[in-house]
Amino acid sequence: MSCIEKLRKAAEKADSLVCVGLDTDMDKIPALLASQKDGGVKFNEAIIRSTSDLVCAYKPNSAFYEAMGSRGIEMLQRTCQIIPGDIPVILDIKRGDIGNTASKYADFAYDIIGADAVTVNPYMGFDAVRPFLREGKCVFVLCLTSNPSSEDFQMFDTSGGCLFEKVASKAVEWAEEGEVGIVVGATRPGYMKKIREIVGDMPILVPGVGAQGGDVEAVIGECGGKSGSTVVNSSRAILYASSENDFPEAARRCLNDLRDKINSVRKER
Amino acid sequence: MSCIEKLRKAAEKADSLVCVGLDTDMDKIPALLASQKDGGVKFNEAIIRSTSDLVCAYKPNSAFYEAMGSRGIEMLQRTCQIIPGDIPVILDIKRGDIGNTASKYADFAYDIIGADAVTVNPYMGFDAVRPFLREGKCVFVLCLTSNPSSEDFQMFDTSGGCLFEKVASKAVEWAEEGEVGIVVGATRPGYMKKIREIVGDMPILVPGVGAQGGDVEAVIGECGGKSGSTVVNSSRAILYASSENDFPEAARRCLNDLRDKINSVRKER
Repeated sequence: MSCIEKLRKAAEKADSLVCVGLDTDMDKIPALLASQKDGGVKFNEAIIRSTSDLVCAYKPNSAFYEAMGSRGIEMLQRTCQIIPGDIPVILDIKRGDIGNTASKYADFAYDIIGADAVTVNPYMGFDAVRPFLREGKCVFVLCLTSNPSSEDFQMFDTSGGCLFEKVASKAVEWAEEGEVGIVVGATRPGYMKKIREIVGDMPILVPGVGAQGGDVEAVIGECGGKSGSTVVNSSRAILYASSENDFPEAARRCLNDLRDKINSVRKER
Repeated sequence: MSCIEKLRKAAEKADSLVCVGLDTDMDKIPALLASQKDGGVKFNEAIIRSTSDLVCAYKPNSAFYEAMGSRGIEMLQRTCQIIPGDIPVILDIKRGDIGNTASKYADFAYDIIGADAVTVNPYMGFDAVRPFLREGKCVFVLCLTSNPSSEDFQMFDTSGGCLFEKVASKAVEWAEEGEVGIVVGATRPGYMKKIREIVGDMPILVPGVGAQGGDVEAVIGECGGKSGSTVVNSSRAILYASSENDFPEAARRCLNDLRDKINSVRKER
């Protein structure tokens, strides 16, 4: 099955556009778990069991695991094995290299970790994307991010529009050779709409929607509410909704609030 | 000591601008070593022992180790421990993320692997660079690469020049807050010269100079031949100069040829 099809089906089954970001930080999980040898995996397992009927995807953030060295890599592998097979795993790696090197990163993401999709940085152009286009896998290309210094380059005005618009247009071209999505931060009003117009139904992964879900109306209003086409990620707000042993239930409540809020905006449209 | 100072001293001591890229691929190392449990580390150790008096830096390519999973990370750690302490380790990771996530990648590179410097992708702007600026560490920012699709975005013409020129200018600004270098492929004549004019003496890491060293005159001609300011990387040509057990001597000969060629161009200037 195509990865985008898998994403769409998971979104429909859970009636949810929410992706839970697994940015698991040993300094933030409950102390009782943090002190155990397999505490990180146990934390992720509890989160996954408590949320898997309400999500369309999981997005482990590779950095948090890499920072723990080889045992972090094992933790990431085991975490991805726990995720139910019908829910896509988007490995957030934001790699941006070419040729042989990019192929090795693809081996890491798909063969070693078992991801269905990855995030990739477009600075080096299609050469940095092509090696990740494999059967049944999807590449989410960074397009416009919401951090302050995204203006350093992404907003550069060229003769044919801003750099991020060029990236969106290129992503559409690249999608002829494989499964491609893009990453767009919940940023100033208007931009997401512009990007959605460029990319059609292509999946847009929107990171950084926080606990309050204050951006939800803008995100769904501009990106649309189609299953498999808009993916709203929330990480810390859900993972660390409680620092006590009730964290799985707290995570579920927080996730469900976001899911409901999104679904009510979807229904209004 | 600053990382750039360490780089300059290593270049002066070895009278060499050559950096050896440790893109160690188990499929390409001699079969006898590949079949051994610690064969990858042994291969790297033999290469390092045979070349360390002739280099200004080593550049392990993280992708090749990550593709082996957790044991690859251990192999990378052990390799970096073998590199003599007065030779800087530039960990080629080309990460491009922000905030917490970038900090975790910096923890990986500096604390887990023990690198002195990293490569970083500038697409997200300074937010993606700042977390890597730590005491005694240097960040090499991707500027202009030599792959065909570098034209997809890096060559975009904005009102103030091409995107890669903007990146070079920003790198100069960023260097006020820490140690910064840039990565520039041995590309069409003229570009490297333009970039050198923008960045002054800032270290330029030039990857992809092959076995024949055919680009050497252009690279040194345009980037200059100052110790610690121009770093010429060669990976596969040196590592796999022989597929037999004489690989350490073959690597040394190949490296020395490149070093001599560079030094003869430096003398001519």
